[in-house]
Amino acid sequence: MPEADLSEPCRSPPRTIAWIGDSHGFVRIIDQTLLPTRLEYRDCRTVEEIWEAIRMLRVRGAPAIGIAAAMGAVLGMHGFTDRTRGAYWARLQEVVAYLRTSRPTAVNLFWALDRMQRCVQGKTEQLPPEQLTRRLLDEALGIEEEDRRMSRAIGMHGAALIGNGSGVLTHCNAGGLATADYGTALACFFAAAEQGRQFHVWVDETRPLLQGARLTAWELRERGINATLICDSMAAQVMREGKVQAVIVGADRIAANGDTANKIGTYGLAVLAHAHDIPFYVAAPSSTFDLSIPNGDAIPIEQRDPREVTHGFGQQTAPDGIRVYNPAFDVTPARFIDGFVTERGLIQPVTERAIRAALAEFWPVAQQEQAVT
Amino acid sequence: MPEADLSEPCRSPPRTIAWIGDSHGFVRIIDQTLLPTRLEYRDCRTVEEIWEAIRMLRVRGAPAIGIAAAMGAVLGMHGFTDRTRGAYWARLQEVVAYLRTSRPTAVNLFWALDRMQRCVQGKTEQLPPEQLTRRLLDEALGIEEEDRRMSRAIGMHGAALIGNGSGVLTHCNAGGLATADYGTALACFFAAAEQGRQFHVWVDETRPLLQGARLTAWELRERGINATLICDSMAAQVMREGKVQAVIVGADRIAANGDTANKIGTYGLAVLAHAHDIPFYVAAPSSTFDLSIPNGDAIPIEQRDPREVTHGFGQQTAPDGIRVYNPAFDVTPARFIDGFVTERGLIQPVTERAIRAALAEFWPVAQQEQAVT
Repeated sequence: MPEADLSEPCRSPPRTIAWIGDSHGFVRIIDQTLLPTRLEYRDCRTVEEIWEAIRMLRVRGAPAIGIAAAMGAVLGMHGFTDRTRGAYWARLQEVVAYLRTSRPTAVNLFWALDRMQRCVQGKTEQLPPEQLTRRLLDEALGIEEEDRRMSRAIGMHGAALIGNGSGVLTHCNAGGLATADYGTALACFFAAAEQGRQFHVWVDETRPLLQGARLTAWELRERGINATLICDSMAAQVMREGKVQAVIVGADRIAANGDTANKIGTYGLAVLAHAHDIPFYVAAPSSTFDLSIPNGDAIPIEQRDPREVTHGFGQQTAPDGIRVYNPAFDVTPARFIDGFVTERGLIQPVTERAIRAALAEFWPVAQQEQAVT
Repeated sequence: MPEADLSEPCRSPPRTIAWIGDSHGFVRIIDQTLLPTRLEYRDCRTVEEIWEAIRMLRVRGAPAIGIAAAMGAVLGMHGFTDRTRGAYWARLQEVVAYLRTSRPTAVNLFWALDRMQRCVQGKTEQLPPEQLTRRLLDEALGIEEEDRRMSRAIGMHGAALIGNGSGVLTHCNAGGLATADYGTALACFFAAAEQGRQFHVWVDETRPLLQGARLTAWELRERGINATLICDSMAAQVMREGKVQAVIVGADRIAANGDTANKIGTYGLAVLAHAHDIPFYVAAPSSTFDLSIPNGDAIPIEQRDPREVTHGFGQQTAPDGIRVYNPAFDVTPARFIDGFVTERGLIQPVTERAIRAALAEFWPVAQQEQAVT
C-alpha cells in the first residue's frame, strides 16, 4: 500500500476517497482504521473490497459512505458485457442490494445507491453495457462533486455560529475524512478559521472506535486549528466550567421531525448541552434527511462487535466472558436540537414543517413518501 | 512477583491489600494496573514503594488508599530507633507529609494519616520507638478492620435500594478492590445478591483508566453477578431505553453540603440520571465526608498525564502534539444526589443539616472545623 510521510502536518489534507482512472479504474481510499499514526491508502478494485472497506470503517462518515457505495456500484459492473434482455439491470440490482448490507444506519448509502439505479433506469435495454457503466461512473463522480460543494456551503453557513473567542465541542468525526473534502460539522470550523476567527475546539475521543481522537484531532491539527482532546466522560465537566458556547456534530440519518441518529454518545451530549444552556447544532447535507420516516423510532440501530469495547486498541481491557452492549448510534430527539446546518442554510427552529420546507426542492414529494429502508 | 491462576472465577476474591508479618513486615497489594488479564501481587517494603503504588494507581479507591497510606506510615518508621528528643515525631511528620503528596483528592488519605499521627501524638517521648511503631501498626490494622465492617454495613443499607428485576448503573470501581474487602457502591450489589435479589448491573468502562471495564466488570464476574459493560458514552442511551432504575457510585470526597468529588464522568452521569428521573446515590463511608469544606468549590481536582488519554490502550490513539485535558475527578453538586449510603444508614434528603446530624458522632465538632487539606 502507498504510504505518506506523517512527520510534517500539511495544510491541505489528502483526499479521503478518489476514483482513479477511467470507467475501468478503481477507488483509492485513506484507510482510516490506521490513523492517526499511519496515513496509508487502500485501493479497492472490486465491489467486495468496497463492501469490506465500508463494513470495517476504513471509509466512514455518512457522505463518504455514499460516495464509496456509488463508486462500489461502478466496480460491481466492471467488465459486465452481457447484452441479454434484463441482464444488466438484474446484475445492478444484485450489486446495489449487496452494498446496502454494508452499514444498516447511514441513509446516504441508500440515497446514493438509489441515485445510481435511477441514472440508468429505463435505459438498460437501449444502451450497451459499456455506456451504462460510463453513466454510472459519471453519476458517482457527480455525487462526489456535489458533496464537495455541499461541504463548502455547510461550512459557510455554520461558521456564523462560532463566535470569536468561543469554545465549540464536537463528537466523533464529521470532517473531511467523513466526506469527499471538507466535512460537515468540521466544515464549520474550517470555514470559521479561514475567516480568521479565533476559537477553540473540544474534541470528544468518541469510544469505542475513537474517531474523535484518531480522526478529528488529526484533521484539526493538520489544518492548524486550536483543539483539545477529552474523553467522552469529560464533556459535562468542560461544559460546567463554561468553556463551551456551542456543540456541533454531524448526523447519519435525520427523520422528518428532526430526530437525529448519530454516533453513540451524541444523545447524552445533547441532554448535557441542554442542561447547561448550550446550543446544540447538527451539521448535515440534505441527503442525510430521510423524510420517509416520521421520527427516530423508525431508525434501526446497528449493534457492533463486543470486541470493539473489550479489545479496543491492541489489548484486552475487560475480563473474559463479560457481556457487552455496543450500539453504534443513538437517536437524539428533535427537542434537544437547536438547529440544522445544511448546504441550503440553517434550519431553525427545528420543526417538521421547517424541515420539509427547507428540503422541498431536494426531496420531491414522491421521494419523501418512498420508504428507503 | 507471585501470580495467581485467572482461568477459573473464584467466589471469594483475593485480598486487595494486606499487612504480612509483624511490625517488621510488609504490605502486599494486588497490582490493579494489571487486571483484568493478570492477577499479580506486589510487595511494598518501603514508604517510597507505597507512595509509588498509590500514585500509579496500583492501589486505588478512596478507602483502600487510606489503608495503604496508614500501612505506608508504618513502613516509613521501620527500623527507626533514634531516641533523641523529638526525633520520632519529626520523622513521622516527614513520612506523613510525603504520603500526603501521593494523591491530592482522596480525603481518606488525609483522614487515615491524621489518625496515624494522633495515635502516637503526645506519647513519642514516653515510649520507645519500637513500641510506637507497634502502635502505628495496630492503628493501621484497626483502620483496615473498620473498613471491612464499614463495607458490610454500607452493603446492607444499600441493598434495599436495588429492586428485584431492576437495572442499576455504576461508574468506575467502588468495589472490593477499592476497599479492604467488599466495596462501597459494589457492596450494595454484593449484599443484594446475597439476599437472593435478581438485578442487572450496567458497568461504565470509565475512561481514561478503564477501572469499570478492568476492575468492576472483573469483580462482578468473580461474584457471579449479572453485568453488562458499556462505554461511558452509552449510559444515556441505556437510561433512555428504560433499563436503569438507579445509579450507585462511590466517592472520593464529600463536602459538608453534599457536593461530591468522584471519578471524572460522575457529574455528567448525575445530570443524565436527573434528566431521566432516575435516582442517583453515592455510597461512601463517613471517612469520605470532609465537613471542613463547605462545598465542592474547595475540592482540588487532580490533573493527570495526557498519555492516559492519548496512549490508553497499549497504543497511540491520538496524533502527536494534540493538547489534552485530563481531570481525574469532577464534582457533582448535591442537588443531583438523591441520597448517601453510609455505614450509618441512608442520608436522605441530601442537606447539610442531615449530613452533619448523621456524622456528628464520627466527626466531632472540633474535627469538623479543622481543615484537612
